[in-house]
Amino acid sequence: MLFKNITMIDENFQVQENVYVGIEGERITYISNEMPQKEFGRIYEGTGKLLMSGFVNTHGHSPMALMRGYGENLALQDWLNKKIFPFEDKLTGDAVYWGTLLTMAESIRFGIVSTTDMYYFSEDMIRAIEESGTKNNISRSITCFDDSDLWEMQGAKEMKAIYENYHNAAGGRIKVDMSIHGEYTSTPKIVQQMAEYTTSIGANMHVHLSETKSEHEECKARHGMTPAAYFNKLGLFDTPTTAAHCIWLEGEDFDILKEKGVTVASNPVSNMKLASGICNVPKLLEKGINVTLGTDSTASNNSLNFIEEMKCLAIAAKVKSGDPTAVTPQQALKAATLSGAVSQGRMDCGSIKEGSKADLIVLDISGAHMHPVHDLVNNIVYSASGSDVILTMADGKVLYEEGTYTAIDIEKVIFEAEKATKRILSAL
Amino acid sequence: MLFKNITMIDENFQVQENVYVGIEGERITYISNEMPQKEFGRIYEGTGKLLMSGFVNTHGHSPMALMRGYGENLALQDWLNKKIFPFEDKLTGDAVYWGTLLTMAESIRFGIVSTTDMYYFSEDMIRAIEESGTKNNISRSITCFDDSDLWEMQGAKEMKAIYENYHNAAGGRIKVDMSIHGEYTSTPKIVQQMAEYTTSIGANMHVHLSETKSEHEECKARHGMTPAAYFNKLGLFDTPTTAAHCIWLEGEDFDILKEKGVTVASNPVSNMKLASGICNVPKLLEKGINVTLGTDSTASNNSLNFIEEMKCLAIAAKVKSGDPTAVTPQQALKAATLSGAVSQGRMDCGSIKEGSKADLIVLDISGAHMHPVHDLVNNIVYSASGSDVILTMADGKVLYEEGTYTAIDIEKVIFEAEKATKRILSAL
Repeated sequence: MLFKNITMIDENFQVQENVYVGIEGERITYISNEMPQKEFGRIYEGTGKLLMSGFVNTHGHSPMALMRGYGENLALQDWLNKKIFPFEDKLTGDAVYWGTLLTMAESIRFGIVSTTDMYYFSEDMIRAIEESGTKNNISRSITCFDDSDLWEMQGAKEMKAIYENYHNAAGGRIKVDMSIHGEYTSTPKIVQQMAEYTTSIGANMHVHLSETKSEHEECKARHGMTPAAYFNKLGLFDTPTTAAHCIWLEGEDFDILKEKGVTVASNPVSNMKLASGICNVPKLLEKGINVTLGTDSTASNNSLNFIEEMKCLAIAAKVKSGDPTAVTPQQALKAATLSGAVSQGRMDCGSIKEGSKADLIVLDISGAHMHPVHDLVNNIVYSASGSDVILTMADGKVLYEEGTYTAIDIEKVIFEAEKATKRILSAL
Repeated sequence: MLFKNITMIDENFQVQENVYVGIEGERITYISNEMPQKEFGRIYEGTGKLLMSGFVNTHGHSPMALMRGYGENLALQDWLNKKIFPFEDKLTGDAVYWGTLLTMAESIRFGIVSTTDMYYFSEDMIRAIEESGTKNNISRSITCFDDSDLWEMQGAKEMKAIYENYHNAAGGRIKVDMSIHGEYTSTPKIVQQMAEYTTSIGANMHVHLSETKSEHEECKARHGMTPAAYFNKLGLFDTPTTAAHCIWLEGEDFDILKEKGVTVASNPVSNMKLASGICNVPKLLEKGINVTLGTDSTASNNSLNFIEEMKCLAIAAKVKSGDPTAVTPQQALKAATLSGAVSQGRMDCGSIKEGSKADLIVLDISGAHMHPVHDLVNNIVYSASGSDVILTMADGKVLYEEGTYTAIDIEKVIFEAEKATKRILSAL
């Protein structure tokens, strides 16, 4: 496939015009202002279109799509205890499969090519992800509320089996990460055992960190240190880690994340919607910490509209800091793409350069809302609509184009996801 | 025209299914679950679609679309002094006309049927608004930095002429409001004269109020009272008033707005992006103050994506208050529609009921991101994408449908707006 005469966001987040981008197999093999000599098969006319890296969503709980808009406008504990936990208690593998496919369909529609996922029923999720054509760093999250040993736990056995059976599956599209759910849902013993195991196999770690003030303060009361210091002391950050939320970081927490190379997955929309707070993204960026963007689940967002998420990352940082120059459009774009790919250990993804995986999206930039063009990057981050994505490609395969999914039977997915949801509701 | 078998948001913000809504001339004349006996002309098949009131944008500066993304990521004073003011200094009537048409095209695309506008070059704006088919409460805003008398000022003469020539023009689509730009850009004498004149003619007032902390605090230092108390003392609120922003209200300000029936136009995206702060919407609602939604200009937003604006109204209020139950989806929807129409003095607009003006939009609710449906209102406010609007109608006339504008030559508008922008840039 050859994108012909298209506008492009390059690996330095600069705009290039009238570019030819050629794809062979799963990789980008040609970038030039000249028409290539060789044949590339399908020619995609790029006039009035923008080609950029696909988005990387670094924090999701994909099956929770089934709980989108369920129990809206409740206080957090009521929402969890009266709605989310009882619903999750009735989940089946089948429901998780359809919920994950629904999330993948929505992801593709909004230009997300890769997701870092934390949940359970991992094999059912993997089936859905594999079929959808997307990429995923999946983890079977561990929680523990007693003095169990890690390897006595059913969840840990599942986690290990999934790693052994699926890590780097689907041509590398699927990677398996490890996950401790959070400080308040685990014990020091389990954290330490997870840290040792994860480091020993060289896997990535995914964890919730300082999402709410109460979680942060209760950890300090329990352990005499912040969640970041606690996890660091137990060795959790000795392996490449993505920490979600990080709203209530304080003092030396920033130095710990920097020193240990921990990635922050900021989830601005979910964090605002749940009234958790606003992450101090400017300080993270200033420290040189890898900042990435996540949606959290559609039960708390309630969409995977990644352009909206990118805009909210920037404007939330501005209002929180009182500084309208905080988080530039380029920084928001980098967080939404390249930094996410890096956090997933996908070093050949996340930007348009020769040799990289062809994880690409096309935006229609012809609309009234995208004009005039003083600076196209500004327009992409602040003016574009999520649905301006008109083509999504992962590993060189077109997954979505102008309303049509190539790998997903969208009507069936919506029908089955609705059906699974109703089945659960009727069992409550 | 008859919307057949469609899902609808009714005047109480409840979902009604399988409804028939008939339009005759500019009004809604039939709402029922039964197919009407009489003929309505065109039949619109409503399956998988949602019919609701069009959006009312209660604070805009439409011609500023030409400055979208211009001088991004600057501190407020640099942005104004180095970018916006020099650009505005070169504006021409022709540029304002094309900029306004561009804004109207974008508004229609995102479901905004009516705007409350504050700017100058009003006749050029009115030409564009009239052609576009939208509704507008337009005002020629007054600023004054010396001891002039109101009626010595050229702007005041323009303002009066526009009121006399255009109030209730275009079949009532155009209304002319009065406007004091703000406390910091006017004198007590001018405010008082404007208050007297506006009250005497029974017009609406539109004003910026406590947008930034410095504006609010400097007023207190200058006049020994808050901007709200200052304007109230000078009689500005003796006429129906829409006050934009209202972020830094304090103490008795809330009582003044309540007592005087002042409407608040909250502009959450612009307020976050400019780092001005977050309006205390929950307190305004609790007081029973009429809360409406505005975008501010696309120079500071930078879009007119009204579904995004509605979502941001709710989530900004939640994170600011620390309360995830603050601002319900119904309250957000009401602010975006009915409350806006009321603030414009359009008592027969803003909701779907028999006898009301047919200012309607259709949303495609068939996408993956709109499923499952636990509660459709939740999905509209939190999950829909701005571009899910597929039909926009004002006064019974379809202005936009599935990519096609009926009254605007969109390609010409974009071309001319770009050309006018380049002409100004080259004159700087």
